[in-house]
Parts: sequence; C-alpha cells; structure tokens
Amino acid sequence: MAEPADDDSLPGEFRLIARHFRPLAAAPSALALADDAALLDPPAGRTLVLAADAMVAGVHFLPDDPPETIGRKLLRVNLSDLAAMGAEPVGYLMTIALSPATDEAWLEAFTRGLAEDQARFGVVLFGGDTVASPGPVTLSLTIIGAVSPGRALRRDGARAGDTLWVSGTIGDGALGLDALTGKLLHLAPPARETLAQRYRLPEPRLGLGAALAGVATACIDVSDGLVQDVGHLARGAGLAAVIEAASVPLSEAAREAVAASPGLLERCLTGGDDYELAFAAPPGAEAAVRAAAAAAGVAVTRIGRFAPGSSVRVIAEDGTPMPITRGGWSHL
Amino acid sequence: MAEPADDDSLPGEFRLIARHFRPLAAAPSALALADDAALLDPPAGRTLVLAADAMVAGVHFLPDDPPETIGRKLLRVNLSDLAAMGAEPVGYLMTIALSPATDEAWLEAFTRGLAEDQARFGVVLFGGDTVASPGPVTLSLTIIGAVSPGRALRRDGARAGDTLWVSGTIGDGALGLDALTGKLLHLAPPARETLAQRYRLPEPRLGLGAALAGVATACIDVSDGLVQDVGHLARGAGLAAVIEAASVPLSEAAREAVAASPGLLERCLTGGDDYELAFAAPPGAEAAVRAAAAAAGVAVTRIGRFAPGSSVRVIAEDGTPMPITRGGWSHL
Repeated sequence: MAEPADDDSLPGEFRLIARHFRPLAAAPSALALADDAALLDPPAGRTLVLAADAMVAGVHFLPDDPPETIGRKLLRVNLSDLAAMGAEPVGYLMTIALSPATDEAWLEAFTRGLAEDQARFGVVLFGGDTVASPGPVTLSLTIIGAVSPGRALRRDGARAGDTLWVSGTIGDGALGLDALTGKLLHLAPPARETLAQRYRLPEPRLGLGAALAGVATACIDVSDGLVQDVGHLARGAGLAAVIEAASVPLSEAAREAVAASPGLLERCLTGGDDYELAFAAPPGAEAAVRAAAAAAGVAVTRIGRFAPGSSVRVIAEDGTPMPITRGGWSHL
Repeated sequence: MAEPADDDSLPGEFRLIARHFRPLAAAPSALALADDAALLDPPAGRTLVLAADAMVAGVHFLPDDPPETIGRKLLRVNLSDLAAMGAEPVGYLMTIALSPATDEAWLEAFTRGLAEDQARFGVVLFGGDTVASPGPVTLSLTIIGAVSPGRALRRDGARAGDTLWVSGTIGDGALGLDALTGKLLHLAPPARETLAQRYRLPEPRLGLGAALAGVATACIDVSDGLVQDVGHLARGAGLAAVIEAASVPLSEAAREAVAASPGLLERCLTGGDDYELAFAAPPGAEAAVRAAAAAAGVAVTRIGRFAPGSSVRVIAEDGTPMPITRGGWSHL
C-alpha cells in the first residue's frame, strides 16, 4: 500500500487506500501506509507467532453478508489461530482482491467493521495491498502475535489419559450457515439470527488461550469441525481420541435444532466455523482448567479423552459408536 | 496450514499441503506447517520490516505463465519492497486461492519455483493457507525482513538539490508484458524472450538496498512505473522531481524496441513491473552511491534531480518537456 493523502488527483488505488485503510494504520510503525513496508520493533524477549488465512466470497462467506462483518470475521479467524497458540495479538497485514461489483460503500462498511474489531482486540493494520480481480472478493490476512518463549500451546502435546475439553458451544457456526442459506426453517427467527451471528462473527478465545499456557498439553481452534480438529490433536500426539457426543456443549438454539432434527447433531460435530478451543489437559488438571476458564470468563466442558491408538471415535449417549459420515471441512 | 503427513487418508487440502508446501517450511519455527501458527524468535536488536502484495491471474500475471515463475515473481515483488527499505529477508507467509483449473502438476511446478528462490534469497515459508475459489488463481504473500534500528530507507527523505538515481534498466518489465501479449513483433525472438523473462522474474535489488542505507536519502522500488514511483518520492518530500528521459538506462532489447517505435519510450517510463530501485542522494554523494552499487554488483545511473515545487517533469533529449499521457499503473 502506498500514498497517504486523500487527494482526488491520485489514481484510484491510492485514493481508496488513503480514504479507507489509512485510518486503520494509526500505529507509527505502519508509516501511515505511506512506504514500501512497515517497521515493527518486536516486543523484547517475546517469540512472534505468525499465521495467515484466506477467505473467498461464496466459499468462506456469503456474498451478501453485511460487509461490516466480513473483514471482522477474517480478522477473528486469524485471532483464533493466535488464541490456539496461547498468544496475544500485535497487528496484521491484509490484501484484498476486489470484484468488479465492489463499490465504495462496501469498502466503507468493510473497513468500519475492521476498525471496531481493531479497537476491541488491540491490533493495528501494518500494511497490505488492494488489487482488482475479475473474480470474487478474495481476502488474505496475516496476523502477528507474541508469546513468552517456550509458552506457546502446540497441537502435538496430548498424552494418553489426558482429558479433552472445548470452550463455549459447538455447532453454532455450521447451523448459522444453514440458517443463512434457507435451512432450519423450523426454528424461530431469533434463534436463526443468533446462529447466523455466530457464523458471521466468531469470538476468538484469546483470554482462554493465554490462560491455558502451562495448563493444557495441546490446543487447536475448531475451524474445520470438532471431529476433524480433534483428529489433528490425536494424530499430532500419535493417540486416539474419544468424544462423548452427549457431553459436547450445544447452545440453546442448537439444542432446539437438534431436538427437532436429530441428524443435525452430526452436523454440529463436523460442521466447522466454531472457532472455539479444543484442548487436552492432564487428568489431575481439572481445577487448573476451570480456574483458567473462570479467569477468561469463558465456559469450558470436558467432552472426552485421549487414549493409546489412533483416530477419533465419537460415542453416542447410549455408549455405542456414532458413525460419522462426513469427516469435516476441507478447504479444497 | 496444517497436518504434515503425506497420507492419502487425509482430506485433499492437507495432502496437498504436506506434499507441496511442507518442503518449503524447513525452518523449525514453521513447525513443519503442522500447527495453527508459526513461531519466530525475532533477530535480536533488529527492527522487523513487513509488507504484503497480492497477484491475480490475468491481472498481475498471465494465466499461461509458467507456474514455476508465478510464485517466484510474487516472492520477488515482496523482496523488492524489502530492498527499497534497505532490509534483508527473513521469511514469508503465503495464501493461495486455487481456481478450478489448477491441477497438481501446476502446484508442483509452482512450489518447485518457490523452493529455488527460497534457496537463492535465504527465506523460508512460515505458514499460510490454501483455499479453493471459483475465480482466478489469487495469491497473497506477506514478507518479513529485518533492518538495523534507524537504518531503514524511507520514501520521504529526499531534499531539494538531491540527485535522482535508478538501478539496472527501466522499461523491460512493461515491454516484456507487451512481448508476451503478441506485441513488439518487429523485435527478434531472443530480444522478446529477454524482455519476457524480465517481466516474469524481476530481480529484487536487496544487496543494493542494504548498501544504500546511510547513503540514499529516500528510496522506492519501481513497481507502478518510473514516473509514478518517482512521484511518490517527490510527493513524500514535498518537492518536484525532474527526470531526464535520455539518461534513463534502457536495456539493449528496449533500445531496439524504442528505436523502431519511439512512442515506446513513454511506455518504458510509465509501464511498471521493473522492480529496480529509484533513490535520492545528496549532490556530494556520487562516489558513495557508486561504491554501494559496485559492492552490490548492480549498475546505477543518475537520471535527474529533486527541486523545490511539486510533481514530476520529464525532460526530453532536446530539453523540452515530454508530455506523459499515462501516469502509471494503478491497481484498480
């Protein structure tokens, strides 16, 4: 990005950057998006944590989603990666490929939403690029966080006998997408709207992730579906994981949906877009886990355990194995 | 990115990542692309330099460009941003939205090219994301570099009386695009191929940028066209810039093209995709500039000066102002 002045004599790209993105780059290190790159003096004695995610209109968000929420979702998805590492956010870079249909009102709302979340999560825009595309709006965001050396949560640390936990409620993201695409019509509109909002604006569990450092043995954020993401924890540790389906916490709206249509339980367990944390903890660490959750103000629920073996087994309420036909979301 | 094992039981995304991208992430800090994020202990006592650029098939590269060169071009474009700051590269994150037409052979060639340039420029892949898109291949890359505190070159430091310099030759990128799109048929095939190669694989001037720290008063990389990018230097300093068109260094192929079609000189001056450095230096610093260029093994040429006033004037060989009808490349 380049050129700060909001000057109508400038080519379109620079005018758009000045008008909409410059206010997001208030940190001195971003050089007001006026230089080839931003300067960042890294926090002393900290390890940096780096992640990147992309979202495509029509694939990862709906083209008619409110533009206020689209940038915020991408930011929050990346913040969720930091949460899963127990890191705190520092800042981000973003590139945007705009479709021919994107107008300035869309950009204005898009950046307004981002500004709100920047204040909420204490991050600033360090730089990026805005380009035109004949295709759908395509966004890419690189997040930079920091963690104390040796304190980052990892995926591969679970041990046999560890308990398996999740934060918040599971399945709302997938049911929210269903609600937004004309399904779940048996639910009352307020329940559908609650689920839709969870799909559009996930809540990264930054406080919980930071509090779990030193407590959890492994952690991941639930982005591709609980079963698949717990599978990453199990595979990373060379273990099997057991999920007790009846223990998996569902929101009131999700419980209502599943009660009316029991097949939706599998959708909740495999659907993705939850951005809750799934983590392992030693069997004797329950009090420490609950203290971390209380400190972060987030509910946590024990939903299973790790055992010798491989793969993920989901156990139904009656103790029988629950067949899972769809493993989870793959990006391709 | 996630999941290192090259295991056919994995969903497609994870298999692709394991097969093609894991070898690019050999640094321990990338956690072999197996975690939610990468860890980076920043180089002690250094300022980080951050930049991001996006490229869209059919806009920033040709859909039938060799896939080996596409990732390398994006990496080099970002490295050029580091060069313009006088920084050295550390690593990068990349997201890729794949079009339905992208096959595994394309990915294999794409990542093979990246591996070659990683070795050449001493960078590693820290992480990223691979997603499917119904649209054109869209790439985004965030580069991380480092520079000694206070030594970063900036865009806004030119002073009245400073001389204006460029590295290498100007215009080859734009003429290379012309050659690849069926123009310049009066040139011999080897000359067209030379120009095409400059368009596909720019040479980031990292050595020169580093050597100019403490010598140049301002620096930018020529990505959007010489006239426009020198305009950024002038505007950043609140000055006018004068470019002597006859002094602008052209390659042999470009000279041949301009000799046959004099209108192509303006194309060279405004066309973009050169990724040479344009920089300002105090009038007494010529010897220091030439020493820096010699140390970096790169040719530099004095092409003009900065003066009180505003805007960029291009002076033709006969001393008359040269009208510039197209200001340069805008991304939108």
